[in-house]
Amino acid sequence: MKIAILPGDGIGPEITAQAVKVLNALGESFELESAEVGGAGYAAHGHPLPQGTLALAKAADAVLFGAVGDYKYDALERALRPEQAILGLRKELGLFANLRPAILYPELAGASTLKPEVVSGLDILIIRELTGDIYFGKPRGVRECPDGPFAGQREGFDTMRYAEGEIRRIAHVAFQAARKRDRRVTSVDKANVLETFQFWRDIVTDVHKEYQDVELEHMYVDNAAMQLVRAPKKFDVIVTGNMFGDILSDAAAMLTGSIGMLPSASLDANNKGLYEPSHGSAPDIAGKGVANPLATILSAAMMLRFSLGKAEQADRIENAVKKVLAQGLRTPDIYEEGTTRVGTEQMGDAVVNALD
Amino acid sequence: MKIAILPGDGIGPEITAQAVKVLNALGESFELESAEVGGAGYAAHGHPLPQGTLALAKAADAVLFGAVGDYKYDALERALRPEQAILGLRKELGLFANLRPAILYPELAGASTLKPEVVSGLDILIIRELTGDIYFGKPRGVRECPDGPFAGQREGFDTMRYAEGEIRRIAHVAFQAARKRDRRVTSVDKANVLETFQFWRDIVTDVHKEYQDVELEHMYVDNAAMQLVRAPKKFDVIVTGNMFGDILSDAAAMLTGSIGMLPSASLDANNKGLYEPSHGSAPDIAGKGVANPLATILSAAMMLRFSLGKAEQADRIENAVKKVLAQGLRTPDIYEEGTTRVGTEQMGDAVVNALD
Ligand SMILES: CC(C)[C@H](C(=O)O)[C@@H](O)C(=O)O
Ligand SMILES: CC(C)[C@H](C(=O)O)[C@@H](O)C(=O)O
Repeated sequence: MKIAILPGDGIGPEITAQAVKVLNALGESFELESAEVGGAGYAAHGHPLPQGTLALAKAADAVLFGAVGDYKYDALERALRPEQAILGLRKELGLFANLRPAILYPELAGASTLKPEVVSGLDILIIRELTGDIYFGKPRGVRECPDGPFAGQREGFDTMRYAEGEIRRIAHVAFQAARKRDRRVTSVDKANVLETFQFWRDIVTDVHKEYQDVELEHMYVDNAAMQLVRAPKKFDVIVTGNMFGDILSDAAAMLTGSIGMLPSASLDANNKGLYEPSHGSAPDIAGKGVANPLATILSAAMMLRFSLGKAEQADRIENAVKKVLAQGLRTPDIYEEGTTRVGTEQMGDAVVNALD
Repeated sequence: MKIAILPGDGIGPEITAQAVKVLNALGESFELESAEVGGAGYAAHGHPLPQGTLALAKAADAVLFGAVGDYKYDALERALRPEQAILGLRKELGLFANLRPAILYPELAGASTLKPEVVSGLDILIIRELTGDIYFGKPRGVRECPDGPFAGQREGFDTMRYAEGEIRRIAHVAFQAARKRDRRVTSVDKANVLETFQFWRDIVTDVHKEYQDVELEHMYVDNAAMQLVRAPKKFDVIVTGNMFGDILSDAAAMLTGSIGMLPSASLDANNKGLYEPSHGSAPDIAGKGVANPLATILSAAMMLRFSLGKAEQADRIENAVKKVLAQGLRTPDIYEEGTTRVGTEQMGDAVVNALD
């Protein structure tokens, strides 16, 4: 089994190195191959998603991705900026289903800015459609405003869109995921304003007919943002579009107070996937050896479970992470008085040692 | 001075009645005229924004709006549903600047789901553009998907757009508001993905040249959603588009835990405005006399300040509200042990009695 390792920028390389260490300690024979991506791809090959990197990702059975982005590349034109790599990979690999668990580890309950009773035991799964919506819709650009009070001025514009088949397949992913959990799906839309999301609501409602054992609720995105703050534990599975999912999944991750702990999976129709931490490249702390590698290590666990058919190995990693937390080891982002502060490498080593 | 009173649906009539009571107690000679809107407009005249209601709103110097929406109207076709009234009023009256303060009253700090140290003293102002963006952009609808893997299927679609002049005028509102506060503006966009919001960022940056005494920061919307949960007090003024503003302003309101307290103003280019509570029509508690009228009463205060040039009267109302809170009076939504539970009317009467 071949795994593409794309460390990227900022803290990407250090956290990915720890996940690789854990993968290598499992006693399996994975073929791991690395390539540059993001700013590193641009620096080495003149493009954030170099052809060789894309070819490797396509050939591999799964992709482990660190993070991309650095101040250094802020002045580049948009098409060359690091984040184009992740957009390109999603589109080229057809990774339409983004799964982001927002889980609060009991040991880290204090890290949340929310009151313990509001978030303790939080365990929600956000499923974000990842290859459609206004992210890729055309036409888009800057043009002359055709009519209305601003006619003749320049205007920026984009196209939001969802085809029936795109909505159906992500709805199936959500209902099936809910069957392995609490059997409740909240579909988040803005059907009261947007044609795209009235259509979304109609199709999700139709797909739901095949899943009568799962409860379906529709919620407007503004209300969903409120309910995430007010009573996040009421959710089980949230399914939504690319744009709303971008916003809500980050808000949900932050509820836990420990975004350095949260993995994510982006899957295609055949469960091939790209796995990455939910946090970014944090260039301000890059190279200091203080970044939390656990989100990336847990992303590797998701990879084993979803793409490589190695659920027991995934369990081993997840149990090892729970063990190091119980031992009181903490990187600075989750440090609290009374626990033991460790660096990136030490944390990686501790997980390796905790593997049963 | 003529004020249009549009009570609407659900708790709208009861809360608006309290605000009218307070207005009448000020000793000014306002001309108040009411009309049906939302579901009530549909029930009385077959349309959520009846012609007479629109004409009244246009003729008035300001509009005091309750809330619209009720389960009863959920099955109507979109064009006849209650929320079309508020969209129509915004567009027809050119109310492009939505001002929503998110303030935590010290007495109500316990109502927030966030830890007191994270939200105590919270005072941010969200300025949402209200007549552009994907809310009104054309074309929109359901069509046959023209190309790509879903060609030939149905797809829902909408157009996001902002013309230069639309961005300029809302940026001016934000910078000018910041000058009366802490002189910091965070412009929220998604410039890394959307052409509309790269253009937004460019224009806001340009307008900022006229306000070098105000600090400008650009932030992606996903990050803004996170920072609102992580460290909301770091913001002063947030300015953003219609869609992102819808989501972020509701999230910010919920941070305070007392959305029943938060007013809003929607202004045109000449400071004529529509004023409404930040919360909705809450049909589940309508008619029970338990709704919190303070957001509507505070909206009336905003109306006096922004549209009617009566800042001292606005102060009188705001001080009276502070007094009733200090007296320990609470509607059920903000009730805590040790305070005095009152109903909608009692709360309105208490504010009238507290006017100095
Ligand atoms: C970097 C950016 C393009 C990306 C997105 O908006 O999808 C990121 O925010 C994410 O959520 O992975
Ligand atoms: C009712 C709805 C159309 C409206 C909006 O999305 O603008 C509401 O959510 C608001 O924020 O006033």
